Amino acid sequence: MYPLTPGHELIGTVTSVGKNVTKFSAGDKIGVGCMVDSCKSCKFCAQDEEQYCATGSTFTYGGVTQYGRAGPNGKPTIGGYSNKMVVNENFAIKVPAEAPLDKSAPLLCAGITMYDPLKAFNCKPGMRVGIAGVGGLGQMGIKIAAAMGATVIAISRSPDKEADAKAIGAHEFLVSTDENAMKAAAGSMDLILDTISACHDAEMYSDLLATKGTLVMIGLQMAPVASSCAKFLFKRISITGSLIGGIKNTQEMMDFCVSNNIYPDIEVIKTDKISECMHKLKDGNDRIVRYVLDCSSI
Amino acid sequence: MYPLTPGHELIGTVTSVGKNVTKFSAGDKIGVGCMVDSCKSCKFCAQDEEQYCATGSTFTYGGVTQYGRAGPNGKPTIGGYSNKMVVNENFAIKVPAEAPLDKSAPLLCAGITMYDPLKAFNCKPGMRVGIAGVGGLGQMGIKIAAAMGATVIAISRSPDKEADAKAIGAHEFLVSTDENAMKAAAGSMDLILDTISACHDAEMYSDLLATKGTLVMIGLQMAPVASSCAKFLFKRISITGSLIGGIKNTQEMMDFCVSNNIYPDIEVIKTDKISECMHKLKDGNDRIVRYVLDCSSI
Repeated sequence: MYPLTPGHELIGTVTSVGKNVTKFSAGDKIGVGCMVDSCKSCKFCAQDEEQYCATGSTFTYGGVTQYGRAGPNGKPTIGGYSNKMVVNENFAIKVPAEAPLDKSAPLLCAGITMYDPLKAFNCKPGMRVGIAGVGGLGQMGIKIAAAMGATVIAISRSPDKEADAKAIGAHEFLVSTDENAMKAAAGSMDLILDTISACHDAEMYSDLLATKGTLVMIGLQMAPVASSCAKFLFKRISITGSLIGGIKNTQEMMDFCVSNNIYPDIEVIKTDKISECMHKLKDGNDRIVRYVLDCSSI
Repeated sequence: MYPLTPGHELIGTVTSVGKNVTKFSAGDKIGVGCMVDSCKSCKFCAQDEEQYCATGSTFTYGGVTQYGRAGPNGKPTIGGYSNKMVVNENFAIKVPAEAPLDKSAPLLCAGITMYDPLKAFNCKPGMRVGIAGVGGLGQMGIKIAAAMGATVIAISRSPDKEADAKAIGAHEFLVSTDENAMKAAAGSMDLILDTISACHDAEMYSDLLATKGTLVMIGLQMAPVASSCAKFLFKRISITGSLIGGIKNTQEMMDFCVSNNIYPDIEVIKTDKISECMHKLKDGNDRIVRYVLDCSSI
């Protein structure tokens, strides 16, 4: 039996390197995200999209090693809520020296998950970008899209998140349960990232798209994602999805966030608070915060 | 009251031109497609996508003139099943002298409707392109995609269309009601154009998409177009739609088809056969054919 610990937004300091390592030295700040290996030879790996590796990338925990760089093949990966980790340098992210370790950690999943589609769909000044769901992913989406120069519309069912959403960079706030506000906003957004993982009808977001607009599903939810055929034809909208991002873009995201001083709002906790935090998250958190586990307390 | 005649795949010979016309001379072959006017000043018109004109393009029949180039403003457009037509040169297509008039006519809607998304999604050698529905649109999709060098898979519920589909360029034929064949073809196509206008569940086509594949809705059908959220995330598929194409691409399509000798299979009819043909089409045509109306018989 192997132990399984979760954890895929990991950050720390390099203690030692193997003899063929060129990217890192002892003492460097280093991060690990959702993946620790992939085939490195398929067309998706060649396009720096290891998350879509044709034979399946190896996820940081609960995956099965198969390419020889993340532990004994056939064995499960055991996650990173640990005070030590061994990782191949090609799946590690250089964290700039000036970056605070605690605040930078959640960038490694939440940051890249939002940066990757914002980059892919050319988020820029003049573009109206909706971020549906103002939680852990949503707050990163708001901050990154605003830093890219877009007009950012935070979309939430919770009117009480308006002040927090605007404080972190949203230019507008739209309450998704307000039918009149939703109708008034119809056709007004070029890009919407739907970060909501609770079961919901995403068609209400596709109604917000302008002609040629794109809805990107980010949160994994169980309801089918549907839209009318007429909307696809007459408005040429697109619906697509996005899953984290490749290592190259993760590095680019880290550098972008650190140089733009973009970090999530966090609260550092020690291991004895994990259960309490899990209950808070399960019950629906009314604050925009990521809990960061201090692994020195393990 | 204005008469309304349908007809939006029109072709003929220029009889005379206005004094400011530079693109055409008397005697030139000329075509008119679905649109006869648009604002020519919005961002979509500026991108040569007049069909998405922000204030609405003027369709060739049943539209309402509003920009001053297609008849008295506020009046309906009255279609082209006629032996004479007046059209603004910016909405007319130059038909190469060597093109046969009868076979070129259906290119003006069916041709551009398929050419535009094939161009937009970069149809090329090495790409596997599915054409769902082997009717008037489907046959043009098969021919154009094959001419662009793709491997073309015709998808139809009618096994008896296989020979015809392969005769016009399909490399493979997939029967959509054959569950085993559909399962075997899962994940095997990069691009699928769904030309079917009868109500159907398009999710069966999205299942055929490879990672990062795109399903383009072309036929206007009434069922919602849906896919699971997981497929959007883990396969990064896209679903979008396409509506005819702009004037610039229509000209490009005409030149491409004529230079590659791509024409639909047609049957020329005179006006006395219209009702008979309408019944044949309504009952489901088992042949791949476009009926072309000889307007000299009007």
